[in-house]
Amino acid sequence: MDEETARRIRRSFASQTMMATLGAEVTEIAPGRVCVRAPISPGALQQQGFGHAGLTFAIGDSAAGYAALTMLPPEMDVVTSELKINLLAPARGDYLLATGSVVKAGRRLCVVTAEVHAVTGETRKQVALLQGTVVPVPKGDG
Amino acid sequence: MDEETARRIRRSFASQTMMATLGAEVTEIAPGRVCVRAPISPGALQQQGFGHAGLTFAIGDSAAGYAALTMLPPEMDVVTSELKINLLAPARGDYLLATGSVVKAGRRLCVVTAEVHAVTGETRKQVALLQGTVVPVPKGDG
Amino acid sequence: MDEETARRIRRSFASQTMMATLGAEVTEIAPGRVCVRAPISPGALQQQGFGHAGLTFAIGDSAAGYAALTMLPPEMDVVTSELKINLLAPARGDYLLATGSVVKAGRRLCVVTAEVHAVTGETRKQVALLQGTVVPVPKGDG
Amino acid sequence: MDEETARRIRRSFASQTMMATLGAEVTEIAPGRVCVRAPISPGALQQQGFGHAGLTFAIGDSAAGYAALTMLPPEMDVVTSELKINLLAPARGDYLLATGSVVKAGRRLCVVTAEVHAVTGETRKQVALLQGTVVPVPKGDG
Repeated sequence: MDEETARRIRRSFASQTMMATLGAEVTEIAPGRVCVRAPISPGALQQQGFGHAGLTFAIGDSAAGYAALTMLPPEMDVVTSELKINLLAPARGDYLLATGSVVKAGRRLCVVTAEVHAVTGETRKQVALLQGTVVPVPKGDG
Repeated sequence: MDEETARRIRRSFASQTMMATLGAEVTEIAPGRVCVRAPISPGALQQQGFGHAGLTFAIGDSAAGYAALTMLPPEMDVVTSELKINLLAPARGDYLLATGSVVKAGRRLCVVTAEVHAVTGETRKQVALLQGTVVPVPKGDG
Repeated sequence: MDEETARRIRRSFASQTMMATLGAEVTEIAPGRVCVRAPISPGALQQQGFGHAGLTFAIGDSAAGYAALTMLPPEMDVVTSELKINLLAPARGDYLLATGSVVKAGRRLCVVTAEVHAVTGETRKQVALLQGTVVPVPKGDG
Repeated sequence: MDEETARRIRRSFASQTMMATLGAEVTEIAPGRVCVRAPISPGALQQQGFGHAGLTFAIGDSAAGYAALTMLPPEMDVVTSELKINLLAPARGDYLLATGSVVKAGRRLCVVTAEVHAVTGETRKQVALLQGTVVPVPKGDG
């Protein structure tokens, strides 16, 4: 994938203040695939002390959306239209790693998925699976 | 609804550090219905400057989960099993208000929905609709 | 709602051979709302003898799609982009009745819901809730 | 996988009269994976002449549910709790092939996916992706 697309995604990610609030960062950008990592920080927990579903969803959403963006022309942005998450296990560990993938990159709609794993040392456990739709829009046409 | 259930929900909500991070608060608790409100704060935006889908999802999830909890015996907690969100409009305005409702309160599974509105002065605009499943679990059995 | 829209929907429904196979019929057409009814016939069951989820889904899908069509200009058709179903109770009774509704009628995307009830004599029991997206397309542009 | 599980699944499938109505058959049973094939028959079409979403959903649902059943003890059955489908392309071709897979086989809930492809001669095109939850229940406890 060209370096300009990766730069474009990093710039867009950096402008998502929610990602900074969650301490999330992009760790991989490849054609049709983007990884986003976030700590399970003290300020992102649910009532049982595990990572909040909102944290898992947020980084899964970003990873999936940017995965779609890798397949689109430079003048396009994406907005999430709909997204479903199945939570598989409590989000506990050193950090969460979301891997977004593209199932179909269409002109009007892109279908995407994301897997979220909790990583503890060398072990990874899948905590969520997401499936949904992002819509390509011209940049600045939120 | 009895006051003890409302107290229980407020206590549980207060222990969700993610809600504090987002500045969210419970504004209504009624049988089968809970409202959660959050600012669209500078730290909760996506790349176009609107509220992040992760914010909308997080308060919709909490509102829906606690709506289910109003229908369950005091010794139970809930965990989200799966949740789908359709985003209807950009999240912009003074604040977001999520209203969670119970469609079916089962012993093993509760089906819930949540509507999220963006409120600006006197006007409300629906920005999201969520539908999903929460699972009753004994307290402390995360 | 104008009579031409109702005629258009009945014509389109009549061309869905799956609806005939299931014995389904349109029972109501109103702005943003369409009802579809189907028997729980001997050929539409799952392994426990209740109506198959495929039956419930199929009439929910049709009701929701045509509900969207009531809000669109005459030259448009719709295709389902995505749809989620939560099954609430076994589909048993005299017949199923799906009521499709429009949450948001957009130019590019319509967000829809459908409730499906099992009807037995005078009693109705909700057996499913659906939420999803249909896409307006020019007629003949499947 | 043991032969008894395969027999059990074929027996259960045979008792789903909806599958016979659709002309569907099981073509593969392996641990965590079941394939179901159905013709795009004249009686299973939507208004544009493609396979109806109800057909695609029905065989995806069956494939996913039986995939979960391969992971469960012999005295268990499954019921679908919720299922989401994204439709990727019109269902046209010689036949549809649904491949169900298990993401997580839990005691209380199983998370499953299914891919549905349209097959035309030697070529396969993915027409749908499903993700959802099936619930293990004791046999006869519909």
